[in-house]
Amino acid sequence: MNELEKLVSDSFHAQGLMRTLGAELALVADGEVHIALPFSPTLSQQHGYVHAGAVTSVVDSACGYAALTKAPAGFEVVTAEFKVNFLRPAIGERFLAIGKVVNAGKLLAVCTGEVRAFTGASAKVVALMQATIVSVGPR
Amino acid sequence: MNELEKLVSDSFHAQGLMRTLGAELALVADGEVHIALPFSPTLSQQHGYVHAGAVTSVVDSACGYAALTKAPAGFEVVTAEFKVNFLRPAIGERFLAIGKVVNAGKLLAVCTGEVRAFTGASAKVVALMQATIVSVGPR
Amino acid sequence: MNELEKLVSDSFHAQGLMRTLGAELALVADGEVHIALPFSPTLSQQHGYVHAGAVTSVVDSACGYAALTKAPAGFEVVTAEFKVNFLRPAIGERFLAIGKVVNAGKLLAVCTGEVRAFTGASAKVVALMQATIVSVGPR
Amino acid sequence: MNELEKLVSDSFHAQGLMRTLGAELALVADGEVHIALPFSPTLSQQHGYVHAGAVTSVVDSACGYAALTKAPAGFEVVTAEFKVNFLRPAIGERFLAIGKVVNAGKLLAVCTGEVRAFTGASAKVVALMQATIVSVGPR
Repeated sequence: MNELEKLVSDSFHAQGLMRTLGAELALVADGEVHIALPFSPTLSQQHGYVHAGAVTSVVDSACGYAALTKAPAGFEVVTAEFKVNFLRPAIGERFLAIGKVVNAGKLLAVCTGEVRAFTGASAKVVALMQATIVSVGPR
Repeated sequence: MNELEKLVSDSFHAQGLMRTLGAELALVADGEVHIALPFSPTLSQQHGYVHAGAVTSVVDSACGYAALTKAPAGFEVVTAEFKVNFLRPAIGERFLAIGKVVNAGKLLAVCTGEVRAFTGASAKVVALMQATIVSVGPR
Repeated sequence: MNELEKLVSDSFHAQGLMRTLGAELALVADGEVHIALPFSPTLSQQHGYVHAGAVTSVVDSACGYAALTKAPAGFEVVTAEFKVNFLRPAIGERFLAIGKVVNAGKLLAVCTGEVRAFTGASAKVVALMQATIVSVGPR
Repeated sequence: MNELEKLVSDSFHAQGLMRTLGAELALVADGEVHIALPFSPTLSQQHGYVHAGAVTSVVDSACGYAALTKAPAGFEVVTAEFKVNFLRPAIGERFLAIGKVVNAGKLLAVCTGEVRAFTGASAKVVALMQATIVSVGPR
């Protein structure tokens, strides 16, 4: 594990919600982070599909950690706000949330994210995020 | 339980994610729904506060069910998109998500939501949502 | 004119776009600013109603100036992002954009805005904004 | 001019606001529309840069017309909502708004847009949009 991967991995594994949802860190690169989420009925909305909140949780973490890879050393990141469009029902055997930094200023990073649903060989984008992440300096 | 409460309650209790998070339906009124969420470390982000994704999940359900109370009989609702601002860290003993319908058209409802954090006698708004919910007719 | 009104008025009258659209500053209070926009065919979309962009422009300025009333002395404000829902066609003789600060932190202010359309005695909300405004320190 | 170009061009030239801002239709393709905006002091915010509202107006029209190229014959499009992040001050000699359809359902299209600022040979993205557009059937 390189330094960037260790930075993100340590924080990711301290998130109780990621464990509760069954999410796994799949990739850490400079400005891009992937989080995998296997389907589970414990994540469902009323029709058995994955709830928009679970989809949002993993892509929020993916965007936040993508921003963390671009933050100054010793800084932390906090989500200021995000917007998510849900393109179709989140039906799939497994999901992949991809967060990318579009622009990283001193203070604010703008990220885009998407969540893909996989069933057999088929892959479909189910959600699209645009997020603003704040860097918070060491106290 | 009146008819509106039964409609929302049946759907709410079919959401696996709400059970996983420990969320409870707190109030159902015409155009307004409240969902309570007690703090649990299983909902945390890396500092031990409640993760933005958990906060979003309950206020998304609150807005969706508020829209359902305004939908034509036999229709279901689906979240098309939402935007959430996080005003401060979600620190508290318990949380209340409040979803309200601002405008209900034939097809689309616009809702606003907020999440309040309670610690002892103190209450603070930690998140603000603006959402678009689609009504889907019976098939 | 008090100091707050002068601060906002000076900046408002330096905005070429507000003059181009025919917008007028209607009210400046601590944390709340109103901007009036009379109907003009120069603001139209393809059906003759007021274009979403003109509606957005005035409520963005209203939210930005509401944030300015809460910013530290000598600071300026910049819109980081906003989201707008359009509830119905912007049909009216005149419009009023209302921007309010919901939460003002050191760095970021969260504002909500709405635009009301007036025709005779009737008033209807046509747009709803949720915005994040950044305070920028003196250089 | 092909049929798609004529459809968009006729509607674009009926928008009073586009004429007021000095915007020009630059490209119409299946699922993608470009609108050019030369700098003018009539579009400014208080520092002389282009106002967020003018930037938003052209990228909203670009997204709406991109959605129109995917709408069923005889349908019109209306913006339900959008969210815009402003990445840097809109400083430039000319601007290009690019709207693209990401997903077109029967009723709702999700579009992404961006606005690029050009100064000499330099080009920078100044704004990022994510929008929901509704198709409205012939009456």
